[in-house]
Amino acid sequence: MFLCFLSDFGLSDDFVGTCHGVIKRIAPGAQIIDVTHGIPPQAVLQGALVLANTLPYMPVGVHLAVVDPGVGGPRRALALRDRDGRLFVGPDNGLLLPAAERAGVEDAREIVNPAYALESISRTFHGRDLFAPAAAHLAAGVSVDELGPPLALDALVRLDLPVAVFGDDSIEAVALYVDSFGNIALNLTRDDVERVGIVPGTRIELELTGERYYAVAARTFADARAGDVILYEDSYRNMSVAVSRGNAASLLHAQPGQTMSIHLVGGATTPLF
Amino acid sequence: MFLCFLSDFGLSDDFVGTCHGVIKRIAPGAQIIDVTHGIPPQAVLQGALVLANTLPYMPVGVHLAVVDPGVGGPRRALALRDRDGRLFVGPDNGLLLPAAERAGVEDAREIVNPAYALESISRTFHGRDLFAPAAAHLAAGVSVDELGPPLALDALVRLDLPVAVFGDDSIEAVALYVDSFGNIALNLTRDDVERVGIVPGTRIELELTGERYYAVAARTFADARAGDVILYEDSYRNMSVAVSRGNAASLLHAQPGQTMSIHLVGGATTPLF
Amino acid sequence: MFLCFLSDFGLSDDFVGTCHGVIKRIAPGAQIIDVTHGIPPQAVLQGALVLANTLPYMPVGVHLAVVDPGVGGPRRALALRDRDGRLFVGPDNGLLLPAAERAGVEDAREIVNPAYALESISRTFHGRDLFAPAAAHLAAGVSVDELGPPLALDALVRLDLPVAVFGDDSIEAVALYVDSFGNIALNLTRDDVERVGIVPGTRIELELTGERYYAVAARTFADARAGDVILYEDSYRNMSVAVSRGNAASLLHAQPGQTMSIHLVGGATTPLF
Repeated sequence: MFLCFLSDFGLSDDFVGTCHGVIKRIAPGAQIIDVTHGIPPQAVLQGALVLANTLPYMPVGVHLAVVDPGVGGPRRALALRDRDGRLFVGPDNGLLLPAAERAGVEDAREIVNPAYALESISRTFHGRDLFAPAAAHLAAGVSVDELGPPLALDALVRLDLPVAVFGDDSIEAVALYVDSFGNIALNLTRDDVERVGIVPGTRIELELTGERYYAVAARTFADARAGDVILYEDSYRNMSVAVSRGNAASLLHAQPGQTMSIHLVGGATTPLF
Repeated sequence: MFLCFLSDFGLSDDFVGTCHGVIKRIAPGAQIIDVTHGIPPQAVLQGALVLANTLPYMPVGVHLAVVDPGVGGPRRALALRDRDGRLFVGPDNGLLLPAAERAGVEDAREIVNPAYALESISRTFHGRDLFAPAAAHLAAGVSVDELGPPLALDALVRLDLPVAVFGDDSIEAVALYVDSFGNIALNLTRDDVERVGIVPGTRIELELTGERYYAVAARTFADARAGDVILYEDSYRNMSVAVSRGNAASLLHAQPGQTMSIHLVGGATTPLF
Repeated sequence: MFLCFLSDFGLSDDFVGTCHGVIKRIAPGAQIIDVTHGIPPQAVLQGALVLANTLPYMPVGVHLAVVDPGVGGPRRALALRDRDGRLFVGPDNGLLLPAAERAGVEDAREIVNPAYALESISRTFHGRDLFAPAAAHLAAGVSVDELGPPLALDALVRLDLPVAVFGDDSIEAVALYVDSFGNIALNLTRDDVERVGIVPGTRIELELTGERYYAVAARTFADARAGDVILYEDSYRNMSVAVSRGNAASLLHAQPGQTMSIHLVGGATTPLF
C-alpha cells in the first residue's frame, strides 16, 4: 500500500523522519512517497492546492497531509475516503477537501479511536502522535470507519478559494502560491484569460500593490527573452507569472494572497508568435 | 531489516544519496529511514540528543549516525548492540551512547574488519566508505562481533551533557539545540522546573548574555498571544523556549551551548490558566 | 530494479515527489534512490560530473537525470544502455555521457514512443511527463529499443570538459563545481599536480580573478590549521580547494567555470609532513 505524505515540516529537523519511523513501526510494508515537505509553515491554502494538483500523479493509497496552524487548539482530526478508493488523513481545516473532492467524498470520519494513535499524544506534534499512526493503520488495512464516527460533509471546515473578477479588458486575480523559483501561480485557467482575449503573444500589464509591470502572454519560457515577465500556463494548468531566467516573486514583490490585476495593453491583442 | 540514518550531511550535495547507493549495493532489501540529515555540521551533542530522542519512534534495526568533526583524525569507528537488539554504527565520539544507553549497551566493537568496508577508504568521507558499508552488512545479517574486537564500555568516548544548577527561585540551564523554527530546547524536564515552582501560568524572566526577557510558562502555543515568549514542554519532553508565531532563537540571540537563567518573577507563582 | 534519480529540482517544491508518484504508478516495485536534487538550477556540467562520480557507488539499474536549461526547446530526449547493463534516461544535452561512457555506451535511443510517456506532455515539466515515465517503464522491464529509434553516438550532444594547461611550475585549472561546504573541485587529478611537483606539503599560490592566495597541498583537513587554504584530493579523486573549518568559495570568491592558476612558490617544493 502506498502512503503519500505532504507537510509543512521542512527537511532541516527530524519531524519528517520521525513520522516515517512511526509509520514503519505500524505498517512495515507501506511504501512512503514524500510529495513535498516544503509547504510554507501554516500555509493551509497552498498545501491544499499542491495536494489537489499532485493527486492525479500519485498512486491510489493513503494520502497523509499535515499543515496545521491550529495544533493544540480545538480542530478535529479527519479521515476521508473518496470514490476512487483513496484515503485522506489530516486536520479538519480545509486542507484535504480540494483533493478529496476531485473524485468526490464518499465517507468522512472524525479520528477519535485511541487504538489508532500513539499511546501518549503530545500537544505540539499531532503529525507524529495522531495523523501518522492513523494513516499507517489505514495503510495496514484498517477500515476508515474504525477510526471514529461519521461526519456530515457540510460540517467539514472549508477554505475560501479566492475568486477572480472579470472586467471587459482586465482580470483581478489572486496569487495562490509562489514556488522556489519565484513563479507565481494565479487563480486562473487558460479559459479564464482567453475570455478577455489573452492568448500567447498578447501584451499585458500586471498591477500589484500600486505598481505596474509590462508582460507578455507566452506558451513557454523559450518564447521570451531573458528578463521578460511572462504569463503562461504552468504544468498543473494554472496561469502563472514568471520571469525568464529570473525570479518573478522578487521582481514584483509578490506574496501569496495578494491581488494581481491583469490589463490588456490598449485593450488590443497583438499576436507575436 | 530497517536501517535508520542520521547525519550532518545536509541534502544539497550527493553525500546522503551516495550512502544510500552504497547501502543498497550491499543490502538491497534494507529499508532506509532518513531520520534527519539536518544536524548542524559537526554538532555532535545535538546529533546525539536527536538520535536518542527519536529512537523510540523508530523500528528496531540498524541505526547509522555520522556527525564527525574528527574525520581523518585518530578516532575509532564504533558498533554497538543494545539490550533491545538495536544495532548502532558511527564514530566513537560520544554520538551513539545517549541513544544506545536508553536500553543499555550489551556489546561494543571497534570496526576494523576490511571485509565490511569499501575496498578503498578515502580520508574525508568515512560515512560512505566505512560507516555505511558496516551498517549495511549488519542489515544484511552480519553479526556485530564480526566487525572487530570488543571494546570496554568505559573506554568509549562520552559527551559532557551540561548539568542544570538549581537555586531557590531560579535555574541555570543550557540551550541544547535550536530547531529550524527557532525553538530552543533546554537541559530541563517538567519535573525540574516544577521543583522551583514553575507550572503553566507562572511568569518568569529569562536571562542570557546579560539581557532579560519576560516570559510565561505555558502548556501549548494556543495559551499564548502572538509574540509572547513561552516556556513549554516540547514533544520530546524537554522544556523549550519559543515565541508564539515567532522565532525565539533570533529574538533572544540564543545559540546551542549558551547558559540561560530562568527566574521566578518576584519569587511568586501566578497561575493564569 | 533500482532507479537512481538526480536533478536540479531542489526539495522545496513538489517536483521530486511528483516524479516519484509517476514512477510508482508505472513501476510499483522499483526502488528509487535519490542521488541528489541539489544540482544548481541548469548546471548541466556539474550535474554530469556528479552523475559520473557517484555512479560506481550506485547499484546497477536505471539512472534518471534531469538538468535541463532547454526544456520546451528543440533538444531530444535520450536513453542509453552501457556495457555494464546500466540504463540512462535524460535530455540530450551532454548530461548523461560522462557517466555512460565510464563503461562505454552500447545503445543510444531517442525517446519518442508516446506509449512510454504520460498522456499529456506539458511544455515546462518534461521530468514528470516524459523522463520519469520512460525511466519507470525501463525499470518495469521495457527494453530500451522500444523507446525510439537508434541514434549514432557522434550525433549526441557533448559537453566541453574544460582542459587544464600545464606550465613548468604552474597549472591553469578550472573550477568544476562547488559543494555546499564551499569546497571547490578542480579539473585535476593527483597525477596532474604531481607532474609539476606538487605533493602533500608543497607550498603554492592560487590565483583567480587577479587575486593571489597562499595555500598548501595537504592529505587531509587534519594536516592544516583552521583558516588554512589547502589543495587536497577529494573523496571522488578530484583535486579540490578547501579552507580548514571555513568556506573556500566565499573566501576566494570562486564560481564554477572560473579559471584558477596554481603556482609553485619560488618554483620549489618544501615537504612539510
